[in-house]
Amino acid sequence: MASSDIELLIQQLSKLPGLGPRSARRAVLHLLKKRETMLLPLIRSMQVVAENIKNCTICGNADTHDPCHICTDPRRDESLICVVEEVADLWALDRAHAFAGRYHILGGVLSAIDGITPDELNIHNLEKRVEQGGIKEIVLALSATVDGQTTAHVLRDRLSAYDVTISSLAHGVPVGGELDYLDDGTLLQAMRERRPVS
Amino acid sequence: MASSDIELLIQQLSKLPGLGPRSARRAVLHLLKKRETMLLPLIRSMQVVAENIKNCTICGNADTHDPCHICTDPRRDESLICVVEEVADLWALDRAHAFAGRYHILGGVLSAIDGITPDELNIHNLEKRVEQGGIKEIVLALSATVDGQTTAHVLRDRLSAYDVTISSLAHGVPVGGELDYLDDGTLLQAMRERRPVS
Repeated sequence: MASSDIELLIQQLSKLPGLGPRSARRAVLHLLKKRETMLLPLIRSMQVVAENIKNCTICGNADTHDPCHICTDPRRDESLICVVEEVADLWALDRAHAFAGRYHILGGVLSAIDGITPDELNIHNLEKRVEQGGIKEIVLALSATVDGQTTAHVLRDRLSAYDVTISSLAHGVPVGGELDYLDDGTLLQAMRERRPVS
Repeated sequence: MASSDIELLIQQLSKLPGLGPRSARRAVLHLLKKRETMLLPLIRSMQVVAENIKNCTICGNADTHDPCHICTDPRRDESLICVVEEVADLWALDRAHAFAGRYHILGGVLSAIDGITPDELNIHNLEKRVEQGGIKEIVLALSATVDGQTTAHVLRDRLSAYDVTISSLAHGVPVGGELDYLDDGTLLQAMRERRPVS
């Protein structure tokens, strides 16, 4: 066993998603060996992030600036908003360079079981953004789960009062996916939305 | 993409063993969400460890005290020394409560390919500990690799001048191991060192 300070660090690291006690121990050993080149720079980065992290008042993104670097990027199309559930979804779409507009983070989805009502989601701010004008299209990029689709339905209802196009992500065969591993729902949807080969 | 400060943190975390870019990103998202309960305590623990970490001048263990908490523990048998390669090996043996004596960390094994000679290992300090007297047995707990066994051989030679018992870990079938997955060397050794069932 290591000393209590080191044990505490291992225990805290092991609570991170994707890490367990064993990998946390390996990570700490690595940090102990590379104090100058790994541990100290990591502490500094964490401090910078911890001191500066805030949620963008426009879109809800986690960033070190408010408004966030996406909402202030002049190269992005202001008239497009992509609505996502969580920061992780924004990062995933942005990593894929899938969207050149701006985002809006709901902070979750409606859930009867968990008691999440529309008031607990960041919907009011979305309506305010639309009211201010200049928005042409809103892409609903929510999970293809019951809760995700319920949320999309509620958003469509609420936003139908405004003059904006509302769209949602296409369903179909994932790129690289093998047909015989896909569920029936996906196959059905992919067949229904089949497209002519140009 | 996240802001550059967050990206830097993700990049640094992803260099830890057992973490990749994807799991580092998930870990950072988790830390951002739980700033007060996870990120700040983690920073504090890392600082404590970074400021206090030292190598025990007796055994070479990484600890926040010198001599380390194992070398100063009065419940441990001072007359037994277990020689291991790395701090990770000490932690593994100690976690299994496999040894009630003290340890000695070599800091690696001899290696012709990597050019590691006896002078680069912590062997001199081991001889000093034996010279001071009071040591009855030295357990060589080194890897069952060519380099590990070469190192064990050199240590046996060097320590044969002193009046101490030198032993090494038993070879055999790992607990929970299935015979048909074991390599020939292990099976041969397990058969050779078979024991009467009492």
